[in-house]
Amino acid sequence: MGSVTVYGPPISPAVSRVLACLLEKDVVFNLVNIDMSKAQHKSPDFLKIQVASPPPLLLFFPTVSILLLNLPFGQVPAFQDEHTTLFESRAICRYICDKYADRGNRSLLGRRGGGLVERAHVEQWLEAEGQSFNPPSSTLVFQLAFAPQMGLPQDPAAIVLNEGKLAKVLDVYERQLQESRFLAGDEFSLADLSHLPNSHYIRAGGKEELFTSRKHVARWWEEISMRPSWQKVVEMQRTPPA
Amino acid sequence: MGSVTVYGPPISPAVSRVLACLLEKDVVFNLVNIDMSKAQHKSPDFLKIQVASPPPLLLFFPTVSILLLNLPFGQVPAFQDEHTTLFESRAICRYICDKYADRGNRSLLGRRGGGLVERAHVEQWLEAEGQSFNPPSSTLVFQLAFAPQMGLPQDPAAIVLNEGKLAKVLDVYERQLQESRFLAGDEFSLADLSHLPNSHYIRAGGKEELFTSRKHVARWWEEISMRPSWQKVVEMQRTPPA
Repeated sequence: MGSVTVYGPPISPAVSRVLACLLEKDVVFNLVNIDMSKAQHKSPDFLKIQVASPPPLLLFFPTVSILLLNLPFGQVPAFQDEHTTLFESRAICRYICDKYADRGNRSLLGRRGGGLVERAHVEQWLEAEGQSFNPPSSTLVFQLAFAPQMGLPQDPAAIVLNEGKLAKVLDVYERQLQESRFLAGDEFSLADLSHLPNSHYIRAGGKEELFTSRKHVARWWEEISMRPSWQKVVEMQRTPPA
Repeated sequence: MGSVTVYGPPISPAVSRVLACLLEKDVVFNLVNIDMSKAQHKSPDFLKIQVASPPPLLLFFPTVSILLLNLPFGQVPAFQDEHTTLFESRAICRYICDKYADRGNRSLLGRRGGGLVERAHVEQWLEAEGQSFNPPSSTLVFQLAFAPQMGLPQDPAAIVLNEGKLAKVLDVYERQLQESRFLAGDEFSLADLSHLPNSHYIRAGGKEELFTSRKHVARWWEEISMRPSWQKVVEMQRTPPA
């Protein structure tokens, strides 16, 4: 029975980022699915989610069945490790890598012994993901994947605008990936991992060409998306909640 | 003579974030101002800035007068520490805190001995800044401070929209700052520091009320903006380039 619990639906890009990280690190965890559409009306600004029904089984049954989670910005995931609760997916991933440094993939924040400079290069590209890649790609994920599912009309102008913005970011990545196998060097890192969720939905939404038209980005995507950790996350996304 | 050099104008919010961090950490550094309007036309996508003229004196004279800097996204600052070059201001700040752990303020990433959980709480609110506070506040900084300076018309709709978005973020902060003196706990941290640049311009641009109308946000802003490190950065911003 693991002490780590993730609260949120695996179809959420931020939740799936944390799941991919836990799987890379071979950390046993519980996943408690949350129907955000039911939870959010309770308190739009400072969300306290009451998990009252037995949560669905994914890896283990949580032993707690009633929990109040603070999600200040109303966004999943919430994360719990013993007495520590956290929000913000990238901060949670850093914590997992630091806390479970000796488990699973030991290079996600730079190789052991790689020193501060390797970690800094990972942080640099993780920030590039958060600041440059995420804004246009999040809009595309919503427009291409979630709006149709929610029965909302797509906004063609927003799609064109953000496709253009994302193309410029991927042009930068193409140059970087011509120099190195992964964004931060020769090892798969948290910087690469953090791109998986949005990229997955953008490709599934019919915009594969953003990736396939760039030789090195295409090669990079093939490699990172075939990792067993991410394949497992995709499988979890396809599994309907119990 | 310090080995650390920051390239970029101190009026840039991202540059000033790094300067505030270096000053908190008592790290001696060189600042090489860059006229971005002249540099950017050379290569809009993958900016290599040639610093050919003797850079302006700020703290020390750089010993190098010709440098090629890679700024993949065309954004300052660039940062150099011996043979390490980095971009992305928040990644640079983390590197400074890790590399110079024993200098100056030792609590910016959680107190020494505070362990991984304290660092995780700082990371959590640093991500909140980057993901929730920065997008609307960056737009406001451009509209309120830089557009008028550049002779560009302001976009009143964008101001109203982003003021509303920022107000919701500050409502979350108000609740958090009712619980703790600073965002991540009882100590000033990188999470607080990272809010200084945009907040400064938004207040100077006539939107102080976003901060003063919220009791705990107002108290927090008074405390973090009066720190000698930030006062020094504001002084550097007012000093015309040599």
